[in-house]
Amino acid sequence: MEDCKPIINTGLRDVVIASTKISDVMGDVGKLIYRGYPVKDLAENATFEEVAHLLLYEKLPDNNELAEFKSCLSAERHIPAELITALKTSPGDALPMDILQAGVSMLAHHDPDVKDPSREASLRMGIKLIAKMPSILAAWDRIRNNKAPLEPSPDLDHAGNFLYMLTGTMPDDEISRFFDVCLILHAEHSFNASTFAAREVASTRAHMYAAVAAAVGSLSGALHGGANTRVMNMLLKIGSPDAVEKYINHELEAGRKIMGLGHAVYKVDDPRALILAPMSETMGKRTNDTRWYEISAILEQKAKQAFKKHKNMDIFVNVDFYSASLYYYMGIPVDLFTPVFAISRISGWAAHVLEEQFAEAAPKPMLYRPESEYIGDYCGPDECLFTPIEER
Amino acid sequence: MEDCKPIINTGLRDVVIASTKISDVMGDVGKLIYRGYPVKDLAENATFEEVAHLLLYEKLPDNNELAEFKSCLSAERHIPAELITALKTSPGDALPMDILQAGVSMLAHHDPDVKDPSREASLRMGIKLIAKMPSILAAWDRIRNNKAPLEPSPDLDHAGNFLYMLTGTMPDDEISRFFDVCLILHAEHSFNASTFAAREVASTRAHMYAAVAAAVGSLSGALHGGANTRVMNMLLKIGSPDAVEKYINHELEAGRKIMGLGHAVYKVDDPRALILAPMSETMGKRTNDTRWYEISAILEQKAKQAFKKHKNMDIFVNVDFYSASLYYYMGIPVDLFTPVFAISRISGWAAHVLEEQFAEAAPKPMLYRPESEYIGDYCGPDECLFTPIEER
Repeated sequence: MEDCKPIINTGLRDVVIASTKISDVMGDVGKLIYRGYPVKDLAENATFEEVAHLLLYEKLPDNNELAEFKSCLSAERHIPAELITALKTSPGDALPMDILQAGVSMLAHHDPDVKDPSREASLRMGIKLIAKMPSILAAWDRIRNNKAPLEPSPDLDHAGNFLYMLTGTMPDDEISRFFDVCLILHAEHSFNASTFAAREVASTRAHMYAAVAAAVGSLSGALHGGANTRVMNMLLKIGSPDAVEKYINHELEAGRKIMGLGHAVYKVDDPRALILAPMSETMGKRTNDTRWYEISAILEQKAKQAFKKHKNMDIFVNVDFYSASLYYYMGIPVDLFTPVFAISRISGWAAHVLEEQFAEAAPKPMLYRPESEYIGDYCGPDECLFTPIEER
Repeated sequence: MEDCKPIINTGLRDVVIASTKISDVMGDVGKLIYRGYPVKDLAENATFEEVAHLLLYEKLPDNNELAEFKSCLSAERHIPAELITALKTSPGDALPMDILQAGVSMLAHHDPDVKDPSREASLRMGIKLIAKMPSILAAWDRIRNNKAPLEPSPDLDHAGNFLYMLTGTMPDDEISRFFDVCLILHAEHSFNASTFAAREVASTRAHMYAAVAAAVGSLSGALHGGANTRVMNMLLKIGSPDAVEKYINHELEAGRKIMGLGHAVYKVDDPRALILAPMSETMGKRTNDTRWYEISAILEQKAKQAFKKHKNMDIFVNVDFYSASLYYYMGIPVDLFTPVFAISRISGWAAHVLEEQFAEAAPKPMLYRPESEYIGDYCGPDECLFTPIEER
């Protein structure tokens, strides 16, 4: 028995509910660890495929393992023709996260592995989702723009293939690598809301697709993955570097939040933001349009000063802050920023579903079934007496 | 500060995480309360439409309110033709809960309310889901059997209309009423795993469809809604009343559970089971096939004796135990039992999403973002040093 704080209606914030071997978010020192490795080292030295292997198999692959894993992902990039037909029935203004959620559910219809409760089947479904979610997203963006979806390119790596399937042009090595780094940085972040949703669904012994569809739904929320789209919309609204200061003052006076600042866990700069910022700067120079990076950089600096001055608090940028301008420079449509988050985070979700259902360590995770406190006071402290409809 | 038990890896069992006005599960005395009213009184006296109104609007409707609510539900029963086209792309052996999850997500594609963050829009989406989920399920069962989906019948109530759209024949009043009572009994049950999933997703400010799709995924699990299908498969396997005792002894010796017995919360007979059992008995007599009811009744009796004798414990039947034979007598396909649970529970899910996002009481619910304990020991107590792939 230990002392604990009341946890009613506080979103389980600061409440440790499970153990995990997948990642460690060290919010006070700004470190993020994937299965033992600092994300900074992985972003500087590894590829997304290596990181996904690390998350799923608990080790960085050697050359043979990596070749096999890449070949497996590449072979699974296609999506069923029936799914393309189904996607074509949706209106072009459907929300892309809703398309992705339906797409994940529909993949289940075509996969006999959903009827196999083994760990091997679950792992296969996770790998298929890592391979196919980018293809669904790219296909949808082309369908809604009246273009034919493209076949995946077996010659390209995971990151480059998505950009190719989305845009129809072969990305150069620098852009592919930058996108690859983005995928690494967004791959995993312990018990965030979407991962918790995936684990919650998996705890009922539902299959991988059912759990991941829940996670996609959770990530779509404005308070979660939806934030990166909102950062870009803010940058577009500000429009130029010299309008930043006025914007900050206006928002602070109105008592509103500034998107991309602050985080539930980090009490220093988000380690991922520190890697994203220079990539955004480079892309600004490459595209001869440094404006979005500049607005971001000035916004970060001025907001930090303003929060210190007016609220006497330190505020820090989070992962969404610089990823927004970076994705924009890459030509990714603004309303696909959150789905792009999802096609990376699927690697973490899959690892968590496997851990939830098949962790070897005792005690085994149990079905999530919390209690609630009933505060209904419809008939005072008593039960309500049923009255026939004529007497109501 | 109060004492509390460790809650790591125990599924938040017995941990009170939120307050709710929607329902109270009094597990020790076998009572279930929906917004002040015992479910027994509602099942005996009200209709599903009245109960759904109670859950959504916090009051039983008067005559005018009920007429308006029924008219609203009836007007929303149709599903978009595009969704039927999309459903037809799925293979006939897809799992019905996966179909339902995709169907819920696809409804979002066709509803402009997903872009409206107001409470009114969320309530409208909840009502549309209550109206349309039965239509999706009925349409799917007909599509997979190479029959054309049927249009809803404006002359029928919610329960009768579903049976009609599923079977193509007008149900008589008794069967409609029995199904109506089943819908009432399954409508709501506080923070069970699927409702918790819906609230978790809603806490990110994701919309109603995204949250409900997550709940459908959670309900599909074998440890949650999937149990009623498993009860029926067990009854079919036992096959006759005189085989019950042998089956129980065999399962107990093998250390296996008997489906439909025991519950996370109830420590007495589930109040819903007490209402379902006589309906199953009546349907057995009506169909001149009392076998499935008899097997259930004998199984309940013998299992209670066996658990008392061999394990010195009291065991009780849960909601899945008698609903299985009842649905079977109604001609509902066994693999639709869990989706039928969903088309009832949607009323509770919708009420919970509304409470999660728009509760007026302080403190307002927060984004669910629990903490985890990192137990990765890949490189002992230290971080792992990144090694290039050639050196692994």
